[in-house]
Amino acid sequence: MKTIKIGIIGTGRIGRVHAMSLVRDVPGVEVTMVADPYVDNATAWLDELGIAGRTTDYKEIIAKDEIDAVYICSVTSTHAMIMVEAARAGKDIFCEKPIDLDIAKVREALETVKECGVRLQLGFNRRFDPSFRAVRDRTAAGEVGPVDIIKISSRDPEPPPIEYVKGSGGMFLDMTIHDFDMARFLAGSEVTAVHAAAAVRVDPAIGEAGDVDTAIITLWFESGAMAVIDNSRAAIYGYDQRIEVFGRKGMLRAENNTPTRVEYFGPDSVSADKPLFFFLERYADAYSAESRAFVEAIRQGTEPEVTGIDGLLPLYIGTAAGRSYKEKRVVTIDEVKGE
Amino acid sequence: MKTIKIGIIGTGRIGRVHAMSLVRDVPGVEVTMVADPYVDNATAWLDELGIAGRTTDYKEIIAKDEIDAVYICSVTSTHAMIMVEAARAGKDIFCEKPIDLDIAKVREALETVKECGVRLQLGFNRRFDPSFRAVRDRTAAGEVGPVDIIKISSRDPEPPPIEYVKGSGGMFLDMTIHDFDMARFLAGSEVTAVHAAAAVRVDPAIGEAGDVDTAIITLWFESGAMAVIDNSRAAIYGYDQRIEVFGRKGMLRAENNTPTRVEYFGPDSVSADKPLFFFLERYADAYSAESRAFVEAIRQGTEPEVTGIDGLLPLYIGTAAGRSYKEKRVVTIDEVKGE
Amino acid sequence: MKTIKIGIIGTGRIGRVHAMSLVRDVPGVEVTMVADPYVDNATAWLDELGIAGRTTDYKEIIAKDEIDAVYICSVTSTHAMIMVEAARAGKDIFCEKPIDLDIAKVREALETVKECGVRLQLGFNRRFDPSFRAVRDRTAAGEVGPVDIIKISSRDPEPPPIEYVKGSGGMFLDMTIHDFDMARFLAGSEVTAVHAAAAVRVDPAIGEAGDVDTAIITLWFESGAMAVIDNSRAAIYGYDQRIEVFGRKGMLRAENNTPTRVEYFGPDSVSADKPLFFFLERYADAYSAESRAFVEAIRQGTEPEVTGIDGLLPLYIGTAAGRSYKEKRVVTIDEVKGE
Amino acid sequence: MKTIKIGIIGTGRIGRVHAMSLVRDVPGVEVTMVADPYVDNATAWLDELGIAGRTTDYKEIIAKDEIDAVYICSVTSTHAMIMVEAARAGKDIFCEKPIDLDIAKVREALETVKECGVRLQLGFNRRFDPSFRAVRDRTAAGEVGPVDIIKISSRDPEPPPIEYVKGSGGMFLDMTIHDFDMARFLAGSEVTAVHAAAAVRVDPAIGEAGDVDTAIITLWFESGAMAVIDNSRAAIYGYDQRIEVFGRKGMLRAENNTPTRVEYFGPDSVSADKPLFFFLERYADAYSAESRAFVEAIRQGTEPEVTGIDGLLPLYIGTAAGRSYKEKRVVTIDEVKGE
Repeated sequence: MKTIKIGIIGTGRIGRVHAMSLVRDVPGVEVTMVADPYVDNATAWLDELGIAGRTTDYKEIIAKDEIDAVYICSVTSTHAMIMVEAARAGKDIFCEKPIDLDIAKVREALETVKECGVRLQLGFNRRFDPSFRAVRDRTAAGEVGPVDIIKISSRDPEPPPIEYVKGSGGMFLDMTIHDFDMARFLAGSEVTAVHAAAAVRVDPAIGEAGDVDTAIITLWFESGAMAVIDNSRAAIYGYDQRIEVFGRKGMLRAENNTPTRVEYFGPDSVSADKPLFFFLERYADAYSAESRAFVEAIRQGTEPEVTGIDGLLPLYIGTAAGRSYKEKRVVTIDEVKGE
Repeated sequence: MKTIKIGIIGTGRIGRVHAMSLVRDVPGVEVTMVADPYVDNATAWLDELGIAGRTTDYKEIIAKDEIDAVYICSVTSTHAMIMVEAARAGKDIFCEKPIDLDIAKVREALETVKECGVRLQLGFNRRFDPSFRAVRDRTAAGEVGPVDIIKISSRDPEPPPIEYVKGSGGMFLDMTIHDFDMARFLAGSEVTAVHAAAAVRVDPAIGEAGDVDTAIITLWFESGAMAVIDNSRAAIYGYDQRIEVFGRKGMLRAENNTPTRVEYFGPDSVSADKPLFFFLERYADAYSAESRAFVEAIRQGTEPEVTGIDGLLPLYIGTAAGRSYKEKRVVTIDEVKGE
Repeated sequence: MKTIKIGIIGTGRIGRVHAMSLVRDVPGVEVTMVADPYVDNATAWLDELGIAGRTTDYKEIIAKDEIDAVYICSVTSTHAMIMVEAARAGKDIFCEKPIDLDIAKVREALETVKECGVRLQLGFNRRFDPSFRAVRDRTAAGEVGPVDIIKISSRDPEPPPIEYVKGSGGMFLDMTIHDFDMARFLAGSEVTAVHAAAAVRVDPAIGEAGDVDTAIITLWFESGAMAVIDNSRAAIYGYDQRIEVFGRKGMLRAENNTPTRVEYFGPDSVSADKPLFFFLERYADAYSAESRAFVEAIRQGTEPEVTGIDGLLPLYIGTAAGRSYKEKRVVTIDEVKGE
Repeated sequence: MKTIKIGIIGTGRIGRVHAMSLVRDVPGVEVTMVADPYVDNATAWLDELGIAGRTTDYKEIIAKDEIDAVYICSVTSTHAMIMVEAARAGKDIFCEKPIDLDIAKVREALETVKECGVRLQLGFNRRFDPSFRAVRDRTAAGEVGPVDIIKISSRDPEPPPIEYVKGSGGMFLDMTIHDFDMARFLAGSEVTAVHAAAAVRVDPAIGEAGDVDTAIITLWFESGAMAVIDNSRAAIYGYDQRIEVFGRKGMLRAENNTPTRVEYFGPDSVSADKPLFFFLERYADAYSAESRAFVEAIRQGTEPEVTGIDGLLPLYIGTAAGRSYKEKRVVTIDEVKGE
């Protein structure tokens, strides 16, 4: 079994997550080099993981012939550019979402990836969560019949810093985009129209930054199914991530994961753990699983499960959601796509 | 303690439910007389409950001086008329929902009730479900902070007969109207606007009858809260009745009730009871509790908890929902009210 | 359908429970008369239930020809005596447990009941709890295969008054006797031997009264199954009543019932209701169901489900448990029986 | 941070588990060498983990100066011998349970370990399960008050091969020994006496081999607490590992872990995942955590949490349990210890 050599571009929080998963949980790979303008900040954990190749210039990774694949974990605004360069250098690509906030730029980058014939996997890690995947697989196997209603509750434990909010493209493109992908994944069908209700409930500063922090979004699918997503930037009880798929033959749902299964029976109530705190804890297994799937696709020469189109379509949906919220009407995907 | 004497108009399914609750679970009352054109069909259970006074003409009940209060459990189209007659006769009134499908008629009837100074309680029994009431009370006590998101899943186990559907005023006014009341009850605030997505997923005959059977409805409240209701006419696993209230300080939710607390750990899975089958089982306690509350209001000379305005407002919301669905736009309550 | 006329002897707590069940939840019966030396204390609830026949002398009930059946709800020391008198008067008998603490006296009373050919049902109400009955029925239907292990957790919310403890015959005969019956019910087999470990953990006064308040009891059955019962007189979180049946084909268990299905997701934990407070709440349905079964047996002329032998056998087991605890050894039922 | 160099003796199932945990989940260690007469059978996974040092003779590991610590994962009969040799060579020792089935041999080995002043940690991995540890820590913090009752359900999914049974020392020393350790861990007190009820219910061949496969064991503690353990060698629904600690201030319990949090609401029931299949899945995190704790103890120069005495005491309890079962009486630990 040939070792797959990987370069990681970006050693921030998400770069570190992928580095840890690759080193610890993915057999047959080597993290050959990491690149980041501030790579020195990562010395401690790079040492601990035994990753020796380090550079401040990602082009060094792209130029390195022995490297088979790159993980693009840099700031969003650089994703499309690096993707294009990596594709031209013949590297297989794992790219964190979103590819870009600009639809035209995303299309262009995907075009190049296609021309170059490299593999591209998008970082929609939640698809690899064991519970969500089981719901999808069992739905796809017909356990609930044709899907009628999908419900996704997706609430962060606390809002990001205002500076982050300002550059994020807005909640629909930054946070809900994961839920749009999940809705497509569960429905096995494409979204045709969107209605978004939203509000500023958590922090007025988010509103002043032109964004919202609370939303209820309705989706219509080609299949005739409908979905509803509810979002909040601040769930005091932790990271609330639940899904539900309903059809004529039954309902599948996945409740939150908790640190332990301990219950306390006390004088006032029976209490159990609140959900795992945030995405690093909740989706730890999912991060490992998505990297194993990516490496397996490279090894088997197959198409990754989550690829370019999966980066583009949620962007359409998110854009439509933003417009729906602002114009208080249903917005079709065709309307957004056609532009 | 003076015995409250009650007449029940209508001895169909819901009339029987109220008769049973009154006789068995409400101390200090007497069901003095029941009226129904087909009262003979009820002989068996009237005998069992020991209710001797029977007539085919409801006017006999209204004319009887000793009767303190009437339960209007007849067909919907007669509610407003009987309400007016009962009010004029000085009876306190318990009326099943809806008062009427026509907003003007409802307003008129409520006007008369007001003029006559009698008590009126609407049959929104779910408010008296112990779980739902606990969620409301704890929400009102501030346990979740100001309400940001309300979620109501309300799914019937099977659709009513097509003939019933045709005369029902449509799913929004027949089925969702309970959920609109519940949303108001939980929010402690009034609805300002509605968006309804809906579809025919269960039975094409429902669509041919001009109705829908599946819906996702978004509500906006004066308080700034939002709510989402999802409905289906056919949940194969039983009567699905769940609520959730989310705010900055936490979340309260009520899961379904089940016949037993038994779990089976088998070779393939761990299985538990599905939800109670339908409203008679699920809301048995709630029916008793609402009658106890009504009788208590009479006895104490206080205003019932669920009164005329609570019959009118859900009608506005349901009408707005129907229009939203047909015109694919957000419809405000003011728009409906103003007509 | 002929009305069954019932006399209730004893208007203390349990007599009242049966009166309420009979009046409200059992069709086709009439509580014709109640007897109690202190019957005046019961005026309020007797009025509310509309029970007019009242006497201080139970013999009046036994002498009344029209009365078909008696409920013996008086103090334990009078059960056997009244049972004998009622049997001789040809009344069917519902008797609260235990019949007596003295095995010889119990045998004698049962002998008389048999000779007189009247029906006898013992008040082991837990057999009629919907969850426990479902576990028994599904076990009897083979769902877990031959039973290997039975587990019963049975803990009271708080200890009875010390005066009560002194006259109770000890925890094994007063409290655990219900669990012995439940174990037999679930096992579908008879107990052959007992080992009891016990201690005073709740209140030293209980120890000073010669009793224990905490126990772990092992039972062996003819079938080869084993059971373990754990008891405490003081569970701060309420009335803890759980059962579990394990065999080669799976496990069935019943968790506690709770007042509502509400959950609160807060900053520290997710909390739900603690169990229902005590036996009146937890077994409300069971009390009604056992009376319906008794009345049905009378009406159908069949043998009650819980009869004389079911009053005797738990007494053997309880006596063996007491001896096991004192002598720190396994005690067989044959040893106790043979005396 | 100095790298701790480790040798693993035994490359069977449990040796592999430790190797994987050490390589993947324990920072700052190196698995320098593994030893096993059949080390060639382990080539595949040793390659995958990148462990190059391999030998058929464990003495090579003991002789290697650079190795700081050894993991004894060989067959039970060799544990004591290797422990003594490793201690004399000054290695810190992680030893799988049991040290030996012979009490005298265990005492002797522990004596030597003590004299040599090396660290010893026993492989009672369940203490490091996040749920069980939380129950222990919260109990130790007083959340339930003084412990009155401990309940442990511990059931394997399927019995081991008969050949294994024959050499295992019997179920009490092979399987229940983990539960004896858990009981001590939870109680925070030492066992004084044991009563064991047991039977052959799963497979007659186990009985023919002189062993049992089903048991209910009562323990008494110095603190006055009591515990009950129930065991089966064959739970068709998977690896059943539950604990419960009850005291005057409440109850803590830990339910089983499951692969996902998915529920299916179908026409007959609501079904969820059965427990994780067996110890490798259920205790995966615990294996990593115990190795991290061992390495941390070495690094900090502290005493391990689970040490020699924790290997000896469960052996006393298991021996007492076997005798109790055979002689049908309560057996004290002093009786066993004194021999």
